[in-house]
Amino acid sequence: MSQELGFEVHLESSFEEAVNNVIAALKVEGFGVLTRIDVKKIMREKLGEEFRPYAIIGACNPPLAHRALSTDSVVGLMLPCNVTVEADPRGGSLVRLANPEMMMQVGNLENNLSLREVATEARTRLESVTKALLEASYRYN
Amino acid sequence: MSQELGFEVHLESSFEEAVNNVIAALKVEGFGVLTRIDVKKIMREKLGEEFRPYAIIGACNPPLAHRALSTDSVVGLMLPCNVTVEADPRGGSLVRLANPEMMMQVGNLENNLSLREVATEARTRLESVTKALLEASYRYN
Repeated sequence: MSQELGFEVHLESSFEEAVNNVIAALKVEGFGVLTRIDVKKIMREKLGEEFRPYAIIGACNPPLAHRALSTDSVVGLMLPCNVTVEADPRGGSLVRLANPEMMMQVGNLENNLSLREVATEARTRLESVTKALLEASYRYN
Repeated sequence: MSQELGFEVHLESSFEEAVNNVIAALKVEGFGVLTRIDVKKIMREKLGEEFRPYAIIGACNPPLAHRALSTDSVVGLMLPCNVTVEADPRGGSLVRLANPEMMMQVGNLENNLSLREVATEARTRLESVTKALLEASYRYN
């Protein structure tokens, strides 16, 4: 994955464990879970197709979201911050966290200084989430 | 709003009517609603802040999502397609639909031909949704 698009962590834990660990790590940085999409279930129900366990988690830090939306409500097109967790065919789980700074480059929103500040803070916090997941992974495996 | 970032429509209808019209127009183009975030409610509950009625709708066309995720699962960072509806302080409602082609430019995913084809089809369908909303708005107001 492009490093710019987001942060990627491979965890040794199972899919369900990884989802729980991600949600806990997000919480430490002030991100709640607004949405959770079960891709495997949707693919089976809507298309009759099999897909590996794959969750799209919509994470939101309310103070940051409020600052961003109050600056320019178009930002809602890029909220919440997506975090994906999937069962890795090689074993364990793959976690990806979208990089908010990269998302702001869509539509040149990074030219807005206030939005850029929010995106930088969100990116810093999501990097901390990534590091915490990595450290927990080393500790327990 | 940058034309590239998404499509924008002003409707004369109320916020709730606009949300219902958007969901109906998405359905015609094969997009179901996977998530619906009530931003006003979250801002009040989490921060005690008032915000205008604002919904973030996560729309998904399952066959297109399946094609995209099967090509490169990193695409999940940009799914579902966001559609926002907000009460316009000038009256009526403002609807924005994210442009999937623009989203693909994040991380240079548009270099993947298969993904680009999916994004183009999704963009075409969301443009049809935009046109349908505009036409319905002219018809009834």
